[in-house]
Amino acid sequence: MEFKIDKDTFLKALQKVQGIVEKRNTMPILSNVLIEAAEDRIQVTATDLEVGMRSSYPTTVVRDGKITVSAKKVYEIIKELSDQEITFSTKENDWVEIRSGKARFNIVGLSPEEFPYFPKINDDSFITVSTTMLREMIEHTSYAICHDETKYNLNGILVRAATDGGRTLLRMVATDGHRLSVSERELSGTTATELGNGVIFPKKGIYELKRMAEEEGDQVLLGFMDNSAVCKKGNTVVVMRLVDGEFPDYTKVIPVSNDRLVTLNREDLLHSLRRMAILSSEKFKGIKFDVKDGKVEISSSNPELGDASEELEAIYSGNDLTIRFNARYLIDVLSVLPTSQVELLLRDEMSPAIVRPAAQEGFLAVIMPMRL
Amino acid sequence: MEFKIDKDTFLKALQKVQGIVEKRNTMPILSNVLIEAAEDRIQVTATDLEVGMRSSYPTTVVRDGKITVSAKKVYEIIKELSDQEITFSTKENDWVEIRSGKARFNIVGLSPEEFPYFPKINDDSFITVSTTMLREMIEHTSYAICHDETKYNLNGILVRAATDGGRTLLRMVATDGHRLSVSERELSGTTATELGNGVIFPKKGIYELKRMAEEEGDQVLLGFMDNSAVCKKGNTVVVMRLVDGEFPDYTKVIPVSNDRLVTLNREDLLHSLRRMAILSSEKFKGIKFDVKDGKVEISSSNPELGDASEELEAIYSGNDLTIRFNARYLIDVLSVLPTSQVELLLRDEMSPAIVRPAAQEGFLAVIMPMRL
Repeated sequence: MEFKIDKDTFLKALQKVQGIVEKRNTMPILSNVLIEAAEDRIQVTATDLEVGMRSSYPTTVVRDGKITVSAKKVYEIIKELSDQEITFSTKENDWVEIRSGKARFNIVGLSPEEFPYFPKINDDSFITVSTTMLREMIEHTSYAICHDETKYNLNGILVRAATDGGRTLLRMVATDGHRLSVSERELSGTTATELGNGVIFPKKGIYELKRMAEEEGDQVLLGFMDNSAVCKKGNTVVVMRLVDGEFPDYTKVIPVSNDRLVTLNREDLLHSLRRMAILSSEKFKGIKFDVKDGKVEISSSNPELGDASEELEAIYSGNDLTIRFNARYLIDVLSVLPTSQVELLLRDEMSPAIVRPAAQEGFLAVIMPMRL
Repeated sequence: MEFKIDKDTFLKALQKVQGIVEKRNTMPILSNVLIEAAEDRIQVTATDLEVGMRSSYPTTVVRDGKITVSAKKVYEIIKELSDQEITFSTKENDWVEIRSGKARFNIVGLSPEEFPYFPKINDDSFITVSTTMLREMIEHTSYAICHDETKYNLNGILVRAATDGGRTLLRMVATDGHRLSVSERELSGTTATELGNGVIFPKKGIYELKRMAEEEGDQVLLGFMDNSAVCKKGNTVVVMRLVDGEFPDYTKVIPVSNDRLVTLNREDLLHSLRRMAILSSEKFKGIKFDVKDGKVEISSSNPELGDASEELEAIYSGNDLTIRFNARYLIDVLSVLPTSQVELLLRDEMSPAIVRPAAQEGFLAVIMPMRL
């Protein structure tokens, strides 16, 4: 094959797949990108067998064909080129020649026949989701994804649709066993059967989906096939294998009898927690909340360093309550919380706490307290 | 002691010493900063026994005294404060209290009596060096400093003054055995005896001196005492123990019979080298120069990846010559070379090459070629 392409287009195409290709060197073909040229377009595909991405770009095809080459090396080469015009062609034995200006590169590829199968995407039964909504929902939940690979059913986000009084609600849930985050928004249009039962999008796929939602354009198309989710936007398709596991029943985790409502300024609380965390222990990051009438005293201590304390104004009237948290967990929620006021809904020092934006529906986090 | 200080001033003072304090935990006192309050100023001192820094700042002293506290922890605390006004005071048993707004920190310090001696600096016999000149000279040499700690005499920059026909020249030299870089500038005013013999400034001290030269102000004062160099600027003094070793005779390293002059565009060569380096081996970064009439062909190859080549226009007339270099070494020089044209002065494929700016004196690098 042979095609001519401008540097910026090719660089963008290659940059997009850098997050997909396999970093570990288990199967060399997975660190390669498949490049196919036909009908005045090139198609660029990468996969790690869990998440795959395919994009297509307009170009001048001189000779149809396909090849796979190291995604990292070809990206490095294209990035360093000084000229805009690039000629990319295959030679014998899966060699590739890249020419630009007076520079010429011969790099060794691998046969495209060895590249894993990428599913044919049919065009029906997609639902439409707004990119803004998708981005916010992922932001409000992804921080709570579990990174412990042995808990594979928590290594992703549960996505589920439910009807509630005529409205269709899309819900995303993530948890690592210590905290849980739920985002819920109204979905306009139809939903998909798979979402009714709930599916778990894998962590890596979620990050690609978020990146997709951050790019130009208002809508992402979402569909399901062969235990995979298919996400389409513009000239790009991301296919991710859904996590095959049971997500815990999050509805049972959200406490219903927390009756002590403490309202605080989000920014003030966030900064105070950052200060207090400096003197909490490196490992557990434990900080103490003393909730009193009209105020919260936050404190931390560390036998090797010292102690710290601070008083914040709060809207609260009720009995005094002392409760301990991992500062990190609170900082994570407060960092993505969209309102200027935050509500803590508590019961007692042993019970999980609810953290939610004040006067806004659709976002709620649960944080387990720390025991003494 | 007790003093009141504004956040920005205190933060700047603490930030400045972060590079000085000892990272390894060999002597706890060396990771601490000494803070002394008297006569409406605080004095902040840090040292790792090789390089020390002392700065002073105006403040409101309520009670004179001194203490040492963890440089890192106190910096982290001050950085996270929301209020500008800070009260810093000592309590019993070397404890420190920091108050700001409603936040209060108690941190454990160490007795100031344990802090290493910081020399008294007398004010005479300093020479004056322009910050611009100092910055440029360090930039033109520091990239070649040897990082192999067993070659301790190369872990710094040789600084030497020499008189040449009535002018006083300040010279800096660094080498790691594979390449060497020399910067030479005229010194206005008097020089110091120590510089006549040549002294080796340690690597870490050089970086602090460069930082000092990058800050506001036109001049740095330079003096010597007790096998140390003393650098003064504004309210800050840096004292560094000179490297106790013999610097190799660099004059013997600079070849004198190189007679093949190749002139190239610096930017073009730099970008070409970056491209070619992608296909050179990870470890040796070897690239080949084929110097011909009016052009240079640069190429690289790697049995696992492939090969690359490029032709650059050059001003050269003479016999063909093939010579190999570590691309990294050339990229390092070209990155700091101040002119648009660069001159390579070669002899043959075995002899060291000279790299220098075209039509500009005072900067010269020597690079050993790679053997086959």
